Amino acid sequence: MTRVRVDLNISLDGFATTTDQTPENPFGDDWGRLTRDYTVTRTFRQRVLHDTTGEGTTGVDDAYAERYFAELGAEIMGAGMFGLHANPDDPDWRGWWGDEPPFGFPVLVLTHAPRAPIVFANGTEFHFLTATPAEALARARELAGGRDVRIGGGAETVRAFLRDGLVDDLHVAIVPILLGRGVRLWDDLRGLERDYSVTSEAAESGVVHTTFRRGA
Amino acid sequence: MTRVRVDLNISLDGFATTTDQTPENPFGDDWGRLTRDYTVTRTFRQRVLHDTTGEGTTGVDDAYAERYFAELGAEIMGAGMFGLHANPDDPDWRGWWGDEPPFGFPVLVLTHAPRAPIVFANGTEFHFLTATPAEALARARELAGGRDVRIGGGAETVRAFLRDGLVDDLHVAIVPILLGRGVRLWDDLRGLERDYSVTSEAAESGVVHTTFRRGA
Repeated sequence: MTRVRVDLNISLDGFATTTDQTPENPFGDDWGRLTRDYTVTRTFRQRVLHDTTGEGTTGVDDAYAERYFAELGAEIMGAGMFGLHANPDDPDWRGWWGDEPPFGFPVLVLTHAPRAPIVFANGTEFHFLTATPAEALARARELAGGRDVRIGGGAETVRAFLRDGLVDDLHVAIVPILLGRGVRLWDDLRGLERDYSVTSEAAESGVVHTTFRRGA
Repeated sequence: MTRVRVDLNISLDGFATTTDQTPENPFGDDWGRLTRDYTVTRTFRQRVLHDTTGEGTTGVDDAYAERYFAELGAEIMGAGMFGLHANPDDPDWRGWWGDEPPFGFPVLVLTHAPRAPIVFANGTEFHFLTATPAEALARARELAGGRDVRIGGGAETVRAFLRDGLVDDLHVAIVPILLGRGVRLWDDLRGLERDYSVTSEAAESGVVHTTFRRGA
């Protein structure tokens, strides 16, 4: 049965999306610090960097990275995560991920300015639509063919799905750094834990993996 | 050698001080939720409630509760934590803790309106002073006689000492609830982790104990 899943890296002070990007430094510095322990896992290196050497960490962080990629049939992401905000004037923008985006399934990009779909040889298809969270999720469920749907990000998109009660599994990798700036994940979510069982596990890296799980 | 220590309970969304107090409910509901797993430990029951039955939890939360009370020679707290803000018109206010406050050593209360000291039979003495964090700490070191100094709270007081680089050990018990309101511990502390080694441990209760430790 389809479960709706979220996986995010956040700082100890709760920032999931960074805001220190500049034209010269399009990801900013904070993003790298937030995702460092994830990007050195063996799974990330295989799945995103197409590294076939088998190198990378294999501990707790890697176990969560494996789950991140498992059982997915569709994803929903915000326009900012796809890169539309950073590239508003480029009608040919195809995302950050090169010619082999690490999806292999349909991705719905929420935007007020839809554009034509983009289809890659590896099964990744970006579809652009204007929709409420529930509408987008209904469409994603159809596309997922019984597999899971991931709400990819960023923080504001995830928070909208959480507020509407649409998420079954929320996993946050809490990185022990204080960013002091960015977009907070937790705003306006008082009492969220009531609908979930919450567990935490500390990784060798110092990252704490906290999981909200509903009705499983 | 004296170490300057902080121990706080915070919510997953970073609130250390609650703001839902009313005259009818002077602690509010959030405070109880933030401190629940701490207040059911065997150590808290013995040290604060004077419970001699030996009841209470004895796992990871209790191990941190024991450390909370160990090796202390003095404490510094804000006026709000002592209760001056909640009882501004009561010159005889003696704190929340009854006739046996769980200190047994001098406590410096930072306030813009100092009053006469209060001395209890069990060694607890509340002294009221107007001082910068560094000035208050110098006085507390003298009083501590080589033992540790604890910065008790609330969040704003702790943050002032952290910002001034005066804290050696910061322990936060992160409770897996989202309060959505209160006073945040982490504001304006970007990069704090650079001066510390940071470790985390998950307790049986679901609380995550994160410790910032400097130069030990």
